[in-house]
Amino acid sequence: GQKSCCFEGCYFVPSAPEQELLCIFGTGDFGRSLGQRLLQSGYRVVYGSRRPHSCGPLPQGAQVMSHTAAAAQSASLVFVCIHREHYDFLETLAPELKGKVLVDVSNNLKKNLYPEANAEYLQRLIPGAHVVKAFNTLSAWALQNGPSDASRQVYLCGNSAEAKEAVSEVATKLGLTVLDRGSLTAARELEDFPLQLFPEWRLPLRLAASLAAAFFFYLLIRDVVYAYAEEGKDISFRIMVSLANKVFPIVSLIMLALCYLPGVIAAFLQLYRGTKYKRFPDWLDRWMLCRKQLGLLALAFASLHVLYTLIIPIRYYVRFKIAESTISKIKENKTSVFDTTLAWRADSYYSMGILGYALYVLLGITSLPSVSNALSWREFSFIQSKLGYLTLFFCTLHTYLYGGSRFLSPSTYKWYTPPGYILSLVVPSVVLVLKLLIILPCVDRTLTRIRRGWERTDPEDDTKKSLLT
Amino acid sequence: GQKSCCFEGCYFVPSAPEQELLCIFGTGDFGRSLGQRLLQSGYRVVYGSRRPHSCGPLPQGAQVMSHTAAAAQSASLVFVCIHREHYDFLETLAPELKGKVLVDVSNNLKKNLYPEANAEYLQRLIPGAHVVKAFNTLSAWALQNGPSDASRQVYLCGNSAEAKEAVSEVATKLGLTVLDRGSLTAARELEDFPLQLFPEWRLPLRLAASLAAAFFFYLLIRDVVYAYAEEGKDISFRIMVSLANKVFPIVSLIMLALCYLPGVIAAFLQLYRGTKYKRFPDWLDRWMLCRKQLGLLALAFASLHVLYTLIIPIRYYVRFKIAESTISKIKENKTSVFDTTLAWRADSYYSMGILGYALYVLLGITSLPSVSNALSWREFSFIQSKLGYLTLFFCTLHTYLYGGSRFLSPSTYKWYTPPGYILSLVVPSVVLVLKLLIILPCVDRTLTRIRRGWERTDPEDDTKKSLLT
Amino acid sequence: GQKSCCFEGCYFVPSAPEQELLCIFGTGDFGRSLGQRLLQSGYRVVYGSRRPHSCGPLPQGAQVMSHTAAAAQSASLVFVCIHREHYDFLETLAPELKGKVLVDVSNNLKKNLYPEANAEYLQRLIPGAHVVKAFNTLSAWALQNGPSDASRQVYLCGNSAEAKEAVSEVATKLGLTVLDRGSLTAARELEDFPLQLFPEWRLPLRLAASLAAAFFFYLLIRDVVYAYAEEGKDISFRIMVSLANKVFPIVSLIMLALCYLPGVIAAFLQLYRGTKYKRFPDWLDRWMLCRKQLGLLALAFASLHVLYTLIIPIRYYVRFKIAESTISKIKENKTSVFDTTLAWRADSYYSMGILGYALYVLLGITSLPSVSNALSWREFSFIQSKLGYLTLFFCTLHTYLYGGSRFLSPSTYKWYTPPGYILSLVVPSVVLVLKLLIILPCVDRTLTRIRRGWERTDPEDDTKKSLLT
Repeated sequence: GQKSCCFEGCYFVPSAPEQELLCIFGTGDFGRSLGQRLLQSGYRVVYGSRRPHSCGPLPQGAQVMSHTAAAAQSASLVFVCIHREHYDFLETLAPELKGKVLVDVSNNLKKNLYPEANAEYLQRLIPGAHVVKAFNTLSAWALQNGPSDASRQVYLCGNSAEAKEAVSEVATKLGLTVLDRGSLTAARELEDFPLQLFPEWRLPLRLAASLAAAFFFYLLIRDVVYAYAEEGKDISFRIMVSLANKVFPIVSLIMLALCYLPGVIAAFLQLYRGTKYKRFPDWLDRWMLCRKQLGLLALAFASLHVLYTLIIPIRYYVRFKIAESTISKIKENKTSVFDTTLAWRADSYYSMGILGYALYVLLGITSLPSVSNALSWREFSFIQSKLGYLTLFFCTLHTYLYGGSRFLSPSTYKWYTPPGYILSLVVPSVVLVLKLLIILPCVDRTLTRIRRGWERTDPEDDTKKSLLT
Repeated sequence: GQKSCCFEGCYFVPSAPEQELLCIFGTGDFGRSLGQRLLQSGYRVVYGSRRPHSCGPLPQGAQVMSHTAAAAQSASLVFVCIHREHYDFLETLAPELKGKVLVDVSNNLKKNLYPEANAEYLQRLIPGAHVVKAFNTLSAWALQNGPSDASRQVYLCGNSAEAKEAVSEVATKLGLTVLDRGSLTAARELEDFPLQLFPEWRLPLRLAASLAAAFFFYLLIRDVVYAYAEEGKDISFRIMVSLANKVFPIVSLIMLALCYLPGVIAAFLQLYRGTKYKRFPDWLDRWMLCRKQLGLLALAFASLHVLYTLIIPIRYYVRFKIAESTISKIKENKTSVFDTTLAWRADSYYSMGILGYALYVLLGITSLPSVSNALSWREFSFIQSKLGYLTLFFCTLHTYLYGGSRFLSPSTYKWYTPPGYILSLVVPSVVLVLKLLIILPCVDRTLTRIRRGWERTDPEDDTKKSLLT
Repeated sequence: GQKSCCFEGCYFVPSAPEQELLCIFGTGDFGRSLGQRLLQSGYRVVYGSRRPHSCGPLPQGAQVMSHTAAAAQSASLVFVCIHREHYDFLETLAPELKGKVLVDVSNNLKKNLYPEANAEYLQRLIPGAHVVKAFNTLSAWALQNGPSDASRQVYLCGNSAEAKEAVSEVATKLGLTVLDRGSLTAARELEDFPLQLFPEWRLPLRLAASLAAAFFFYLLIRDVVYAYAEEGKDISFRIMVSLANKVFPIVSLIMLALCYLPGVIAAFLQLYRGTKYKRFPDWLDRWMLCRKQLGLLALAFASLHVLYTLIIPIRYYVRFKIAESTISKIKENKTSVFDTTLAWRADSYYSMGILGYALYVLLGITSLPSVSNALSWREFSFIQSKLGYLTLFFCTLHTYLYGGSRFLSPSTYKWYTPPGYILSLVVPSVVLVLKLLIILPCVDRTLTRIRRGWERTDPEDDTKKSLLT
């Protein structure tokens, strides 16, 4: 997924009247790639190296000197492309670097390896310089090959606005988009950013995998093993589609409900405490922060369910069964009567499923960053809460209708275990009932007041309160 | 839908060497949430209150004083977190606030409640201060719980560039993204923004609902009521899927056509007037501005139509019918001959539908903000106009093929009413014919000249024109 | 696709205390539209014209004078809305324009028409002015009718930061979003931007069209022509769905494989050369830059394949065949036995297809600009490479399972030609085998070292190297 950049042409137009001289400390991979790009964008580049005469191939047109000489030459900007472990020698260059802008591009191999961010460490070593953390979220590959979609953005932070402005100008000339992340205290996050691999997706993914595995084995035993043990039939082929198409909707419905459960719990907690100014317990906070991911995973499972359902009629097994039933009807000369109630139920079941899925997709689309950015807070919460509960309602109803008359009939309890869809209904039913309680006018009124900042005065707090009033 | 923010860690790293002191007027919900966030981001906070000794719980670490004292203390920035109704007392603080930056975060409960924007009113009260409108599009909840997707953006406006820069720096330190909306005259829009609930979707949604309701009742009478009245059959179960699957494509096709009709009307209006410099009538302007919403709603209906169509073969009713027809064929020993013409027509019908829908989805994807931002004007208009008309053509052809040989046959006119799909063909056919007229070389040439700024001189204007030339 | 802008209200609030005077050179279409918008946003506007008394209708409220007089009046900003061919006369105005900001809004009719960009030419003519290239990516229509989604962004570039700031302020007041593209050397790209029509999509689209056409004719001959020639049957109706549904998946699979082939080739090239610092051949570079487009087109073809597959059971032809086979079974009193192996294979085939398609859609979603911008480099490459190869593996397996036992059976080789799906398996199989080689531990280790900057010293290079070390 590399995108040809429409603004690429300019990298190879190295005119520019002023030809500013920039300095790069370090001749490693990143330093070389950066230098090459700077040269292509019309800058002059001088490398600072410990061994200026033996530092491997550098980009054509760049000079190389000792650190001191390079620093002395360069007008203002020095890119520090060396590992943090070697920062200490820079202290000796403090006089040459005084007043200059030092761009720290370093990353660590792990999070929390050091007590302070690399950039803050550098600033402490050379207090006279203006350290700016930048470019560390770009890969050397991306710098060398021109910007791709993923690497267009440069995050930067630093304590000096002028220093940031100078770095920002260089980044813009390189065809990159700059995002200012504030003061140097943000350096730690910028250094952690390239190390992260979907941190906020881990918990939801693990939950989804556990739920899917649990229900898969549960249904494997109820369906395939049961049929083999009790009736001696091998229906193992059902694993690929029939079983999967039971697991997917079950996991999807439960995860959708888990998406709305923390909000309901939080509301009851606020009602119970009578204030919104107490922090929620940590587990609830963490749960609420991964609701978006829970919802999107639930949507993924629902989409799989839709696809698995739609291919049903072209499956060999289904076609065989239908032909067999038609043939047996003719042979036994049975006439079946059309059951209008069954038709109503079956069609309602499909309708609820489709409408629920359509709303689901709508929720998914509005959670795309560019779409949600265009919404006002009121619009966003309308979609994610009102439409969200409607989705949950449709999907739950869809599952109840699936059960229909079979629902709770004892013949479906093989080996005394309930069918999977009944288990999947527990959490969503609880969430919907609790939500119903919350939107009762009397409860809703109290909750709204609490959320606007009102606090219930507990009798025991009276003394303290009266002192304040 | 809350997203864990990857840059959140920093709120709890309250170092920062300078520890700037900011002032907040008002100790209400928003003021408290804002203060908490500022403290977490490393600022010192002082509250200004009318009753500094009885203003309820404030964030730990914040001071509280009288307004005058607080304003005198604070270096430069004062957040005004009070309701507009209480602004008047600020006038007495004018000397203390002179030269300071006042951040107006207020919102109103309704649009157009006051003749001027709150921020402009504040500027009028304290002419010596630099008023910046900002932060009002964020909710107190979002400020307290860290930024979510929906609340990352801070819009600001103000007359002083330095004041805006200062506010922008604070917002950036809070992990927010700043969007400058210009001078203080933009304050009104910023104050209206949080109040809006899909203003541009109202008209299209109302239209879609009316069309859907009208066609639903029309088809209910033609299908279900007719069958009951004339043949005594209860086919009410068809409402859930069969009827819905007739209403959805009809509404979708009509709305897609309504999306392109105003463009065609505008072209004819320009041709008739011989100039593009006259304003269009208001209704046409409003219609043209909601074309995107019309198109997206049409896409939603088309998607429902696709899903409702794809579940046809797994419906109980359909399976029953197919089995019945096979059984009756065998019993009556009929042999049916494969009809190649019918196969051609049926397959073309499906192909057109699929291709039309695929183009439709493409149009939908390119109307996502992040995708359309990446397109040049030429590319955007190519997709939305050329591909748009192709979509309309495919979908119209799909509907004509659906009719096929039955088209206009009198037996389909139950109770002298035409089938729904024939009614749905009127508007798209008109649009396609008018568009065909426009792209005729002679008409196209004139229209292109008009759109490039050329104006036809009407004989009666001659006198006036000759004076100018 | 025009979107009603929520910030539009302000254009008609022409207060503003300062009422800055801006100058527009040229009274053509763009000049007039720009002037109208500026007036609506609260600026005063003066036009400079060669014939101030005969320049057609101008927006109400604007003045018109000679160029010299207009330039002398205007405080600082002059919009140059004239064609490049007429720039030369501006040289005579150099004294009046000295120190002023000139905004070049011009576009050319073709790329590379002139040796230097229009804005650079303008700067050369009037060296004393500060030329800023801006607004040229907006259409006059968009300026007149308020910003739409596509035209909200103003790209600008120039050598003076102050001049850019001034232009940027005007653009912001007009409700537009500004993107700084660096110094004036970027003007050429900005001038080429509005001319482009999907330049990076041309090669992939041409490739997709050629592949589709080639396979269409190949399969037309193998299926339809063969059946007519050898068996005298007319099965031409199959073109619309059956044949299309063979061409789409074949093209999709090949293009998906072509998306990953260049990466594999590049890896082998780096292994062979022992360095990453040599440029790839041009064809490989170009190929790698259109991988995203290849992938998205492959996804489009896969989506068509999905839709064409899902409508199979509602096709007249398929229903006829199924009924016929049921009837013939009864008449001939045959009993068919359920084949568990076949059921396993068929269901696995569908499962692989669905899972492959689901991953495919995930890849498509992450290539949306707003989604990929939110990913770190590590996350982006995880999805696009790891999940990408998994997608390719699933889709290839899906195709192998489609073949199943028929695979390589001679009866399928009509007229000695292999079935289409076998041809489609060649490229993906090669890519998967090569990728397997690359991820072998020994090869992977060397490659990782090379990509981190290590270089293999060839024996013949030894002399040179030893000199450096």
